Amino acid sequence: MSELCDFGLIGLAVMGENLALNVESRGFRVAVYNRTADKVDAFMQGRAAGKQFVGCHTLQQLVAQLKPPRKVMMLVKAGEAVDQLIDQLVPLLSPGDVLIDGGNTYFADTERRTAAVEKQGLLYVGSGVSGGEEGALKGPSLMPGGSQPAWPLIQPIFQAIAAKVGPDADIPCCEWLGPGGAGHYVKMVHNGIEYGDMQLICEAYLVLREAVGLSNDELYDVFDQWNRGELQSYLIEISRDIFSVRDVKVDEHHIEGFLVDQILDVAGAKGTGKWMSQHALDLGVPSTLVTAAVFARGLSAMKTSRLRASQVLPGPAGASAADLIGDPSVFIEQVRLALYASKICSYAQGFVQLREASEEHEWGLDYGKCALLWRGGCIIRAQFLDHINAAFVAQPDLENLLLHPYFAAIVQRAQVAWRNVVIVATQLGLPVAAFSTALAYYDSYRRARLPANLLQAQRDYFGAHTFELVDKPGKHHVDWLNLRKPPQA
Amino acid sequence: MSELCDFGLIGLAVMGENLALNVESRGFRVAVYNRTADKVDAFMQGRAAGKQFVGCHTLQQLVAQLKPPRKVMMLVKAGEAVDQLIDQLVPLLSPGDVLIDGGNTYFADTERRTAAVEKQGLLYVGSGVSGGEEGALKGPSLMPGGSQPAWPLIQPIFQAIAAKVGPDADIPCCEWLGPGGAGHYVKMVHNGIEYGDMQLICEAYLVLREAVGLSNDELYDVFDQWNRGELQSYLIEISRDIFSVRDVKVDEHHIEGFLVDQILDVAGAKGTGKWMSQHALDLGVPSTLVTAAVFARGLSAMKTSRLRASQVLPGPAGASAADLIGDPSVFIEQVRLALYASKICSYAQGFVQLREASEEHEWGLDYGKCALLWRGGCIIRAQFLDHINAAFVAQPDLENLLLHPYFAAIVQRAQVAWRNVVIVATQLGLPVAAFSTALAYYDSYRRARLPANLLQAQRDYFGAHTFELVDKPGKHHVDWLNLRKPPQA
Repeated sequence: MSELCDFGLIGLAVMGENLALNVESRGFRVAVYNRTADKVDAFMQGRAAGKQFVGCHTLQQLVAQLKPPRKVMMLVKAGEAVDQLIDQLVPLLSPGDVLIDGGNTYFADTERRTAAVEKQGLLYVGSGVSGGEEGALKGPSLMPGGSQPAWPLIQPIFQAIAAKVGPDADIPCCEWLGPGGAGHYVKMVHNGIEYGDMQLICEAYLVLREAVGLSNDELYDVFDQWNRGELQSYLIEISRDIFSVRDVKVDEHHIEGFLVDQILDVAGAKGTGKWMSQHALDLGVPSTLVTAAVFARGLSAMKTSRLRASQVLPGPAGASAADLIGDPSVFIEQVRLALYASKICSYAQGFVQLREASEEHEWGLDYGKCALLWRGGCIIRAQFLDHINAAFVAQPDLENLLLHPYFAAIVQRAQVAWRNVVIVATQLGLPVAAFSTALAYYDSYRRARLPANLLQAQRDYFGAHTFELVDKPGKHHVDWLNLRKPPQA
Repeated sequence: MSELCDFGLIGLAVMGENLALNVESRGFRVAVYNRTADKVDAFMQGRAAGKQFVGCHTLQQLVAQLKPPRKVMMLVKAGEAVDQLIDQLVPLLSPGDVLIDGGNTYFADTERRTAAVEKQGLLYVGSGVSGGEEGALKGPSLMPGGSQPAWPLIQPIFQAIAAKVGPDADIPCCEWLGPGGAGHYVKMVHNGIEYGDMQLICEAYLVLREAVGLSNDELYDVFDQWNRGELQSYLIEISRDIFSVRDVKVDEHHIEGFLVDQILDVAGAKGTGKWMSQHALDLGVPSTLVTAAVFARGLSAMKTSRLRASQVLPGPAGASAADLIGDPSVFIEQVRLALYASKICSYAQGFVQLREASEEHEWGLDYGKCALLWRGGCIIRAQFLDHINAAFVAQPDLENLLLHPYFAAIVQRAQVAWRNVVIVATQLGLPVAAFSTALAYYDSYRRARLPANLLQAQRDYFGAHTFELVDKPGKHHVDWLNLRKPPQA
């Protein structure tokens, strides 16, 4: 009998294959299984050939090949397939074995499954895996949570395969996040922030293209510059790259000119970003940037209706972009500052949502750790996250990033520019929903007094919902109809 | 044995009592039941005394008192209480009897219950009831849906008790909406639109108070004027009234000056409005106004954090409201137009959501009918709904209200004013999230080309999510990393 394996992996789609190869490349022996056995054989004869893999055609075989306590990771389609696999695996495993879900699972499912699997004497981990196919192979950001005793068992493997950051590239982008669905929740917020970042970049692109009139070559240079400063990040970098791709073959089509100009402006709207918005609504926390991003994708998908609307609904007349913008290089810098300030608001919102969720579910999340995990491997990796990490390390109970001196100072420095970009876009009829909602968030948050006093009066007027008084305790109701001034005819 | 009753009502909280009194006042005999029998006795000896009511202490008694086919309406807390009641009632009822849920139930629960109750040979109706306590007593807006054969059975009672509109006050605000959860869905969208309307009024109030510097007396006059024109509506009317209430006693507190100024600016965030946002996210349709309204309530609730932020985060320096506004009366009219144009966008979004939901669930909703039901009895009742009704009667497949000449013309007329209000608010640091998101919606919707082409390129770059090409079929993927211009160090 051959040597037992250190790790089992179920599901050999691209992500699964790549993650398995990553684990094996760090010196671990890996058993793999896929529902269709052909896939296993193809993998074993292909990318896995000559490596420390054992291919299995049944779950029984897979489990038999693993050293106890066994670590089995599922990388299958989120949803019912996970529940079915758990039902099949639980009877095969032994007390203390660890079952890991590395899919894009909704955190509430992971909460439920962790409790159910723990009841069977096993350990359960729900782990966010970010970085796409490339990340899975070379070093993803990993966000594990679930049964706490599982952590020391999986830590050596998880931290070995994770992306590394820091001056010596030795800090793994993988730390234990907390019980239950904590890991998948942090991954969900990561994805929502990614939505916001992408939408902000698209709005900057829209303004630079339509108002300043930049060509793709000029956009390349602007994004290249931005990527050398405060905005340095993977998403700015790949946007820069995108502006350089031209005269290429796309399947059977030969593209003349820039590829980005030939791509249809219709983005898919179904994804994990909406989960963050929906849960923000449940928590009552204003995560407006991810929501603006999800809705912007929805609007992009209304393409045929938009084409009709573009024939019927006029824009502002007589606005001259050149006059409104002034010196293009000054305005381009203003767009950069608008993007940066909006991005700070987006992350501030994301961390407020993490805090509220953590308090509701008693996860005890460490927010600095979250920022640290996102510094490498994942789509939102950015220089900027070092500062977020530092802010939470210095002040673990920081209630909003905007209150931290470092970020407050940036937003203050950006303020004039940020407002001007929103104003110019509004004058020119260019939609900048994310820039605007970020600014409205900033202006609402820094307001001691919002107009919700009128709203509470309305609710009490028509529905006896009661109101509170300033500086006095208690909930009150009055009979407005009898107290009002009798209206004139 | 006394005469049998025409209608049974379960749940004698204020809404239930009022609705029961309304039904009885139209000449129907009503049997009432409440889980705590004391409540039944108190009602019978109090408000029901001398009227055509029969008080019941058990569900068996209630059912025995009803003429077949029986009509039993539940007005209890939405959620499990409804399921429990259904379980108790189904064995007592006979084939063809009608069970009605008049609570604020999530439409998906009504879908499920309609199917389950129909399987038992009974009929089920989920009906939105809008108008608060006053409406329930004097004439609510009723939005029934569920088992179609139930409609002729309940129609005489429902249309008798509903609010009436039209020149002769004879058009009932109650029509059959469709199968399953159609009625509760329409009610949910009604509530979401109500959220949007209230937030828009609050933003107008904020701008008029902070930028123009209007007193409550002046606000009263402005809202009184607005209520005589295109904006005529219940919510504008009660806002006007609110500005008149001063020097009153609120429980043990004597209020000096205007009550609205003493009310705490913290609004509850948990309500049915968020359901509309959450389902819009599921459908992928951009219902941005209700969502902005829900998030604005969330921001209002962050009061202590806002107070801290107000000390740390500066607003724009040196902006003079007087200079930016110019002639106050001109600017006030601009605020009115901004409110009106934003409101049109909000309703346009609501009807798009109704259409998408109706198509998904095959409800066959009649959108003109929805507008008609909202003309009286309910919180969003407004002159304006006549025009929406007329638009859908003339063009039942109208895909967006903004494409209808009547509304397109209003928005065009309002456009300069609308943009100016958003710009002035942005310059002064006054948050107008709903005005802004409405304008961004308009500017996105009328754009043939949005920047989502870049977003699709990004998604294909990092995740191989594929993109489409303009004017060419198919989904494509390219290896961006190898096609990009090699970056300079």
